[in-house]
Amino acid sequence: MYYQNNMKVAILGIDGYIGWPLALRLLSRGHEVVGVDSLYTRKRVSEVHSDSVTPILSMEERIKQIEEKTGKTIKFHKGDVNDPDFLYRFAEETRPDTFVHLAEQRSAPYSMIGLTQARETLMQNMGGTLNLIYVMKDILPDSHLLKLGTMGEYGTPNIDIPEGFFEVKYNGREDYLPFPKFAGSWYHWSKVHDTNNLMFANKVWNLKITDVMQGVVYGTRTPEIEKYELYTRFDMDEVWGTALNRFCTQAVLGYPLTAYGKGEQRRGFLSLEDSISCLTLGIEKEPESGQYRVYNQFDEHYSINELASLVKERAKSVLKIDVKVDHIPNPRVEKDEHYYNPEHSKLKELGYKPSRNLKDDIDSILKDVFNFKEKAMSLKDVIKPKTLWKDESKEKAR
Amino acid sequence: MYYQNNMKVAILGIDGYIGWPLALRLLSRGHEVVGVDSLYTRKRVSEVHSDSVTPILSMEERIKQIEEKTGKTIKFHKGDVNDPDFLYRFAEETRPDTFVHLAEQRSAPYSMIGLTQARETLMQNMGGTLNLIYVMKDILPDSHLLKLGTMGEYGTPNIDIPEGFFEVKYNGREDYLPFPKFAGSWYHWSKVHDTNNLMFANKVWNLKITDVMQGVVYGTRTPEIEKYELYTRFDMDEVWGTALNRFCTQAVLGYPLTAYGKGEQRRGFLSLEDSISCLTLGIEKEPESGQYRVYNQFDEHYSINELASLVKERAKSVLKIDVKVDHIPNPRVEKDEHYYNPEHSKLKELGYKPSRNLKDDIDSILKDVFNFKEKAMSLKDVIKPKTLWKDESKEKAR
Repeated sequence: MYYQNNMKVAILGIDGYIGWPLALRLLSRGHEVVGVDSLYTRKRVSEVHSDSVTPILSMEERIKQIEEKTGKTIKFHKGDVNDPDFLYRFAEETRPDTFVHLAEQRSAPYSMIGLTQARETLMQNMGGTLNLIYVMKDILPDSHLLKLGTMGEYGTPNIDIPEGFFEVKYNGREDYLPFPKFAGSWYHWSKVHDTNNLMFANKVWNLKITDVMQGVVYGTRTPEIEKYELYTRFDMDEVWGTALNRFCTQAVLGYPLTAYGKGEQRRGFLSLEDSISCLTLGIEKEPESGQYRVYNQFDEHYSINELASLVKERAKSVLKIDVKVDHIPNPRVEKDEHYYNPEHSKLKELGYKPSRNLKDDIDSILKDVFNFKEKAMSLKDVIKPKTLWKDESKEKAR
Repeated sequence: MYYQNNMKVAILGIDGYIGWPLALRLLSRGHEVVGVDSLYTRKRVSEVHSDSVTPILSMEERIKQIEEKTGKTIKFHKGDVNDPDFLYRFAEETRPDTFVHLAEQRSAPYSMIGLTQARETLMQNMGGTLNLIYVMKDILPDSHLLKLGTMGEYGTPNIDIPEGFFEVKYNGREDYLPFPKFAGSWYHWSKVHDTNNLMFANKVWNLKITDVMQGVVYGTRTPEIEKYELYTRFDMDEVWGTALNRFCTQAVLGYPLTAYGKGEQRRGFLSLEDSISCLTLGIEKEPESGQYRVYNQFDEHYSINELASLVKERAKSVLKIDVKVDHIPNPRVEKDEHYYNPEHSKLKELGYKPSRNLKDDIDSILKDVFNFKEKAMSLKDVIKPKTLWKDESKEKAR
């Protein structure tokens, strides 16, 4: 393991919620950044008549402003990582030390709309990662792939969740095996399939891989976003947003917070700032040659009810807005109450120190959404769930 | 669980090695058979300049002969299960009680040729199974899917292999979870991905699914193949054949048997006749409504060396041909020596009784290959391995 601060990093999915602030962080730490994006998320978000609540610039404008403000250049390649020719061309041209792969369809509800969306999610996500595997094997066998997975790959088993692998005892014998996954949507399964394919690629071709099982990320700000005044996207609609984002937006608009089901579903969370720090650590402290490593990347876990209570309390305190919490039928198929205790010590052993807490970040999210309240209000009709995991009355979506 | 003998069964992949004899068996047991095939295997086998050693008729000719010999009709629909429109149309038209899904790319070496073949294998196989899931959910929620997986999904862990699920103890707590998979080729991983997707489909939509983890199937004959004199295919080339088929063909031609590596790799096997009996049992004794069940479908396990020794001995005894066994570098990435003890009691509990043994079937395979020795000789150049899991010198195949 070594530390580098002048690496060439390719961010696949640079236009996204994580990709953009990661690019700013890596630039500010002296790395060279090249980026790929098909602008898929912008397109799909606009298709459900939604938008980022925070104002985001086009990639061209983002890069132009960064050049003006820092003198540094981000080389941007518009294209789809699921297109083998594009990805081979990109890799041959840019030859990065590290690929950070964030360029996947990232919405669980989207993947559950119907067969078309299920196929798109499973195949695009798998295809991009598979292309990357072959690009590394064929062209850049010493490069490092840092791939974004999700804590949702594990599901909610009734036992502790290790970081990828665990000691199994069965019928008096022992082995060290991948932890059994059980995801809750095609999106989450697409990440499980990726993980499986990456484990295999590592075994056969010794590729150097960091597989990040990330929790739900919250927040609108990092020091670089504030310094350069270049927001990242903030989605709060039922398809592309997260529960916390929806709650904060509902609070600002004075609407009841809509908790799905009993609200005792529990998930791992971390702030945008801490996510960017963890990813940067993973990039700068590479795995050994031939190593496949898995991190569970989150700080704390909260239930939906805890999130809702906290948002309600902070909205009252910060914005003087009183909101109530409504429990609406859960559109998802998931356990309403369950054990949840994932291990997460490996990133800390690598040097990661959590810097933010949820309470402070909710305050800053509320303030940001309040600043763009008019925009949020224009999107009020896309907050409540329409995408159901299971609905016999729904006509099939093909 | 109940027993039915006048079911409507859709065999997807009816033109294949298992599909054709299964169709004959189901017809002879009074079921109605409808079939789907894209003739993919015939096309891909001819592309590597190989062919079935046994003479096989076209689907049209097969159906014509069956009609002449039994008065029964098989409705055949030429098409690709990975085409959603085709599969929906087929299901709406035929409305079967049971889908037997054998319509996947089935060659591990083919899947390892390069990125193009890896993408084709992973996406086609996943796409077909996903289409079936939605067809069942949308049109035939009470139908039963019997899906062919492979024992290769499990890999070769250092512990016993249960039938799909097992009791896990970890950090003092317990859960009943899917057994961790670790496959050895993109083909085998495609089956793992299918298994994962099917478990999820069962959980969300209560689909009735039998997932068959089948061992390597050997043999050229079933009673119906003999009765109607309608062979199924027998592949022995490096891409589409199995080790035992190659050994038998090499023996008939007087060539050394080419065992990969040390030859201590151990796999589960069963005869074609027993495979057809097991599948028929799984079709006639359906799962409960909403049940997902997994069978490990094999009789005995053998090492490659044991297979080679047995073929060598039987060739001497039956055909008076003396052959030697050569150990050639293993083109695959797999453990040369390993523990192997998969459980397989569930099919026996359902009523399955193994009827054949490997020794007798090798005799009959050797005789069949000897009967078509001229054909086998014409294919001699495609027996030895060209497809390598790992070969730095190989130019990339895109």
